[in-house]
Amino acid sequence: MRIAMLGSGFIARFYATSLHAQRRKDRIISVYSRNIENAKRFAKDYGFEHFTDKMEEAVQHPDVDVVLISLPNHLHLPAVEAAAKAKKGVLCTKPLGRTAEEAKKMLDLAEEAGIFAGYLEDLCYTPKFLKSMESVKKGAIGKVLWAKSRETHPGPHSDWFWDMEKSGGGAIIDLGCHCVEISRNFIGKEIRPLEVMCWADTQVHPIDAEDHAIGLVKYANGAIGQFEVSWAFRGGMDLRDEVMGTEGTIWLNNFLRTGFEMFTTGGKDAYVAEKAEIDRGWLFPVGDEAHDLGYPHMFTDMFDAMEEGREPLETFYDGYVVNAILDAAFKSAETKKWEPVVLEDWRGNKSEEALRQAISYDDDYYLIKEEVLPNGDTKLILKHKKTGEVIQRVNS
Amino acid sequence: MRIAMLGSGFIARFYATSLHAQRRKDRIISVYSRNIENAKRFAKDYGFEHFTDKMEEAVQHPDVDVVLISLPNHLHLPAVEAAAKAKKGVLCTKPLGRTAEEAKKMLDLAEEAGIFAGYLEDLCYTPKFLKSMESVKKGAIGKVLWAKSRETHPGPHSDWFWDMEKSGGGAIIDLGCHCVEISRNFIGKEIRPLEVMCWADTQVHPIDAEDHAIGLVKYANGAIGQFEVSWAFRGGMDLRDEVMGTEGTIWLNNFLRTGFEMFTTGGKDAYVAEKAEIDRGWLFPVGDEAHDLGYPHMFTDMFDAMEEGREPLETFYDGYVVNAILDAAFKSAETKKWEPVVLEDWRGNKSEEALRQAISYDDDYYLIKEEVLPNGDTKLILKHKKTGEVIQRVNS
Amino acid sequence: MRIAMLGSGFIARFYATSLHAQRRKDRIISVYSRNIENAKRFAKDYGFEHFTDKMEEAVQHPDVDVVLISLPNHLHLPAVEAAAKAKKGVLCTKPLGRTAEEAKKMLDLAEEAGIFAGYLEDLCYTPKFLKSMESVKKGAIGKVLWAKSRETHPGPHSDWFWDMEKSGGGAIIDLGCHCVEISRNFIGKEIRPLEVMCWADTQVHPIDAEDHAIGLVKYANGAIGQFEVSWAFRGGMDLRDEVMGTEGTIWLNNFLRTGFEMFTTGGKDAYVAEKAEIDRGWLFPVGDEAHDLGYPHMFTDMFDAMEEGREPLETFYDGYVVNAILDAAFKSAETKKWEPVVLEDWRGNKSEEALRQAISYDDDYYLIKEEVLPNGDTKLILKHKKTGEVIQRVNS
Amino acid sequence: MRIAMLGSGFIARFYATSLHAQRRKDRIISVYSRNIENAKRFAKDYGFEHFTDKMEEAVQHPDVDVVLISLPNHLHLPAVEAAAKAKKGVLCTKPLGRTAEEAKKMLDLAEEAGIFAGYLEDLCYTPKFLKSMESVKKGAIGKVLWAKSRETHPGPHSDWFWDMEKSGGGAIIDLGCHCVEISRNFIGKEIRPLEVMCWADTQVHPIDAEDHAIGLVKYANGAIGQFEVSWAFRGGMDLRDEVMGTEGTIWLNNFLRTGFEMFTTGGKDAYVAEKAEIDRGWLFPVGDEAHDLGYPHMFTDMFDAMEEGREPLETFYDGYVVNAILDAAFKSAETKKWEPVVLEDWRGNKSEEALRQAISYDDDYYLIKEEVLPNGDTKLILKHKKTGEVIQRVNS
Repeated sequence: MRIAMLGSGFIARFYATSLHAQRRKDRIISVYSRNIENAKRFAKDYGFEHFTDKMEEAVQHPDVDVVLISLPNHLHLPAVEAAAKAKKGVLCTKPLGRTAEEAKKMLDLAEEAGIFAGYLEDLCYTPKFLKSMESVKKGAIGKVLWAKSRETHPGPHSDWFWDMEKSGGGAIIDLGCHCVEISRNFIGKEIRPLEVMCWADTQVHPIDAEDHAIGLVKYANGAIGQFEVSWAFRGGMDLRDEVMGTEGTIWLNNFLRTGFEMFTTGGKDAYVAEKAEIDRGWLFPVGDEAHDLGYPHMFTDMFDAMEEGREPLETFYDGYVVNAILDAAFKSAETKKWEPVVLEDWRGNKSEEALRQAISYDDDYYLIKEEVLPNGDTKLILKHKKTGEVIQRVNS
Repeated sequence: MRIAMLGSGFIARFYATSLHAQRRKDRIISVYSRNIENAKRFAKDYGFEHFTDKMEEAVQHPDVDVVLISLPNHLHLPAVEAAAKAKKGVLCTKPLGRTAEEAKKMLDLAEEAGIFAGYLEDLCYTPKFLKSMESVKKGAIGKVLWAKSRETHPGPHSDWFWDMEKSGGGAIIDLGCHCVEISRNFIGKEIRPLEVMCWADTQVHPIDAEDHAIGLVKYANGAIGQFEVSWAFRGGMDLRDEVMGTEGTIWLNNFLRTGFEMFTTGGKDAYVAEKAEIDRGWLFPVGDEAHDLGYPHMFTDMFDAMEEGREPLETFYDGYVVNAILDAAFKSAETKKWEPVVLEDWRGNKSEEALRQAISYDDDYYLIKEEVLPNGDTKLILKHKKTGEVIQRVNS
Repeated sequence: MRIAMLGSGFIARFYATSLHAQRRKDRIISVYSRNIENAKRFAKDYGFEHFTDKMEEAVQHPDVDVVLISLPNHLHLPAVEAAAKAKKGVLCTKPLGRTAEEAKKMLDLAEEAGIFAGYLEDLCYTPKFLKSMESVKKGAIGKVLWAKSRETHPGPHSDWFWDMEKSGGGAIIDLGCHCVEISRNFIGKEIRPLEVMCWADTQVHPIDAEDHAIGLVKYANGAIGQFEVSWAFRGGMDLRDEVMGTEGTIWLNNFLRTGFEMFTTGGKDAYVAEKAEIDRGWLFPVGDEAHDLGYPHMFTDMFDAMEEGREPLETFYDGYVVNAILDAAFKSAETKKWEPVVLEDWRGNKSEEALRQAISYDDDYYLIKEEVLPNGDTKLILKHKKTGEVIQRVNS
Repeated sequence: MRIAMLGSGFIARFYATSLHAQRRKDRIISVYSRNIENAKRFAKDYGFEHFTDKMEEAVQHPDVDVVLISLPNHLHLPAVEAAAKAKKGVLCTKPLGRTAEEAKKMLDLAEEAGIFAGYLEDLCYTPKFLKSMESVKKGAIGKVLWAKSRETHPGPHSDWFWDMEKSGGGAIIDLGCHCVEISRNFIGKEIRPLEVMCWADTQVHPIDAEDHAIGLVKYANGAIGQFEVSWAFRGGMDLRDEVMGTEGTIWLNNFLRTGFEMFTTGGKDAYVAEKAEIDRGWLFPVGDEAHDLGYPHMFTDMFDAMEEGREPLETFYDGYVVNAILDAAFKSAETKKWEPVVLEDWRGNKSEEALRQAISYDDDYYLIKEEVLPNGDTKLILKHKKTGEVIQRVNS
């Protein structure tokens, strides 16, 4: 694939480094930046010729197969417009839009133009996530009851994140988009998200947007997605997922505790990891940041999908659903009530079975619980099917 | 201290084992159980003479200094009445009441009788908790923004827990009482809890009460307490606390990951730990369960407090506040809105400062964030004090 | 028990704090220190009257039941002599002697005087250790093949440790005594230690004794004990044990990773844990140091044993065996060969079966290994009983 | 690169999967197997045409740029001969030879033929290892004192491993080669390994080779490399490295504890990870096995090196040094003494400075140690430069 990169900042560089690593055959051949000097430097750093400060010029470059949007949130829509106009495939960084309305426009543009459109939700491509999704799909943890995803750190790298007009919000829009989509994958993308309850506050920073938020997303089968996001966390970047199923549990730690521990008195090693805060004492680097954050697997899926004429794992439609959930979260933070997820375009299941299914113990009783006691006996908690009376029996 | 034990079940035995361990000088001298056989066996097992199936008889035993209530929730109030009548000190297991109204009655009874009254909130006495509270009080993590406590396991041991009339609820009343009080300690007991948002559902078990719930408690200074409780967790007993402060973070794992890991092909070792689910593969026992759950430090504080004529760390008043928060949680789970914490008797601070305080960078700007980049440069995110414009500066 | 404390330094204070904690009924009633001011301060701090700078005076105090030796290594023997003379029970801190010869004298003195003699090997009393020993004894990990114990930190607290004449050596004598006895317990105290191979060096400090050593101890059944000790470790105190059995594995982390993690920007909390090196960044405190290091369980066993007229878990004889192993380690570090463990007084088994026992797969083959492949097939590695030929079979 | 794969077993498939993953541009175009059916199936599985049961045919295929040896150990030398004869670049799986003599022949063959020759020591290419090597080189942990690497699991996959004639040994040759080279990298490849002490035994399996071994490698500057290898470990594959430096510590866990934890009651997920032993309870999968074991980074370095005309990180010379160290280990296990590492061809430093350098505290004293006490005081341990007397000073 020959790629036009739109943007030249932190995330564009992270993407580019991943794209050109490990003897991959895809290549960036053009870069657009609002600042021509940045574009020039970027092209030089990644070893190609064409750079420009006119977005159209990069997008319409005749050799370009696919456009990669690495711009601030408020520029995603114009960039998708440009790609649709040029009939080029498009990959857009997260979040898709600042609102569901904006995301829906991008989705419609792509679908109307008939172009490939991938949503760059990297955290749904981390190796741990992909492998645990396999297990979940095989039934290893039974039915998913609750899926929590947490991303917290001391705050983003660039100024525009902190400007609500450009970003569309604070920690919810920046980090919540990841967490919502992670939970949604675990619970099942075909299951409709119904409503959201969210607390959000600006606890620390002198900004207008929220720097800390917690939200619950209720799905049609009764499962709960949870997001915990903050720009006020101290200690690095905390990226953890937890899933409870009827038959099991999954705990993922993507960043701060991955089996790499270093103590140093020194501080000679300035860069430990993205959003690390300290350079001495006990440090917890990650081995290969881009890989552990999902970039290589994400781009592989995107380009393979393009070539194979299939959808990638994460589509513009997914980005739209995420924005709709976040819209409800913002509203709930204001109204202090559960708010419905408004999805004018729902493509999943129309109805769901409830998670709970009573297990019959015998003709008279349901089984509530079975447990081994310290002395080796088995204790049963049973509920009478008619009277509802709860009793216990100990089998030794 | 000479103790009358009321109750002879799981928790009574856990308490008794702790009380008689490690050459402690306090002794149980009487036990009451509704079932005389159980009382008899208990007395024999713990090496004392007096047992009875009449509560009054144990409470009024002339040698008894203090009454220890280890009964199902619906019997706490009558037991406190008996102790108050006998003018004996009283220690009550958690939760204090099934509701704040019930808890308030117990508080009033104890205060009117002028007896010592301790609330047996063991998880606020674990060695890790006590040590982290010391650090928090010294300011090691700055101002507390958020304190989460999680207790989840596959469900309780005894039948009465599963009967709402006796227990007063499900996982919220059983486990939430711990979590709420842990968060409240970290945030500060003097800070008033204002309102609660709670989701609760019966996702798995054939019961009327909730078997899974998540709640947020908002405090007067803007801090948030969070509880996550479930009777549907698979994998053992998950007991974790997490605290975010403006200057630091605390993560406590009290049970499933404490530096003790064992793999066994066998299954010869029937009892691993409270609520462990499996006896082969990778197991995570705890060294000394009673100690890691806080019992020894709790009883030491209680009896020392009695002798020194001071209040223990956890009082009936604390139990009452916890119940008031749980009442609001139950209500919120129904109304799907934030619900106020009703405290007719508030003994803490009347007002609080907000957590957020803007840091001035220079005459013109507030400092939003300072970060070291991969190349060693320092990037500043600043907000203009008047225009509100957000800019970034890189100092190399 | 009424205790005479000999010594008033770091370990004496750690012991005293444990002895007087948690409403224990035993009490220190006298203290001896070479420095009368220290003795006086100690008595005041722990709330008793009698202090002295004459060892005999403390030992022979008429109210004293048991003498607790918390003195530098070179003073253990004279202190045991004093206790034996006074026919008082005696507890001696680790190591018992500087050499097996010295330890043997203490053992003989105690046995000839008919006094109770306990070896204060606290790390064989940590809750994790005690619980894992239970599992090992029940067969949860099969036959023990290898037991490694590691204790490393940046060096001891007091000057005398660094003086070979007083201490008897460096990290081997100071820390190796713990590690050797931990491994010996896991492997089985009844199994004779045969020979030792040890590397030791002074890699960092300007001292004569070794500050880093690694040793292997071969037991009569073929099991291997391993010790890793250092005074040159950076990052705190690393206390880990690992055990491999034919049916399982045990990993214990007693200090640096116990489920307590704290990040602080601050440094307001000066004392984190014994031998912690840093006061900001990620810190790993322990909840209750004395408890996690085994002191309460150790003293409980010692005093219970005295009262019950039985031997404690760790005796002077154990201390003597440990010293004999360390003697062989020192010798091996010089000769660069395996050196025999010289035990003129061996009280365990005379002979052992070898660990290895071939498992017959069928009439013709032994089973070497059975494994599940990625595709779910089972692969068998078999060895012909007569020809010795190794083959593989895949069962799908 | 166009690759001829020699071999079609477990490791060949692991390599092939890595080579063809993630849109890499290098391609296998021919495969040789002793069994033509296996060769055929391999070619089909990895999507290319040419397969053969004649090694020469694959090696001399005109389109082949590089030969990749994935054969049992005893076939490495003939395969290198074939590549040298054909003047094709060659990559050889670990260990290079069964002995240093064999490895030296391969080294000489490659150097005489002037072909590129890479040693496929994947564990020196894991992302964690590469990143920690960067830190070590920057001085983050000071001078390396000790570097331990451990690889233990329940035994290898294929029959030939268990046959000493084909493999050259047991766990030492199979796993020790990794561990030795990991330690050697941390300590410094330019520093000469002097001598080895090794214990080895056949503790469990009915085989002739060792199934458990521990070895120490002494380097010219006094640093110690340690390897712990076993085919008798229960619980999965334990891959851990630990490094002690004068200014810091590194702990790497490459496989069993990487931040991915799953509990399952089920057992529906048959393949968890390489050498996992169990399919229910707590499981510890890795996200991307090939990546976490270093394959992608290894092949990237190898092919980049070929194209750039430079040496790869791991060369045949390195493989030769490793074999020389293992030769000494085998000998030491027999003689029970330290055995010299025989290197007729040493290309590193001729001499080294000792690690230890005394730190002067003032004119009179060396500083042994500085420590913060529980009360906040600082204690200094000092040694007189002339008298050697050790004293302590407390500064409050």
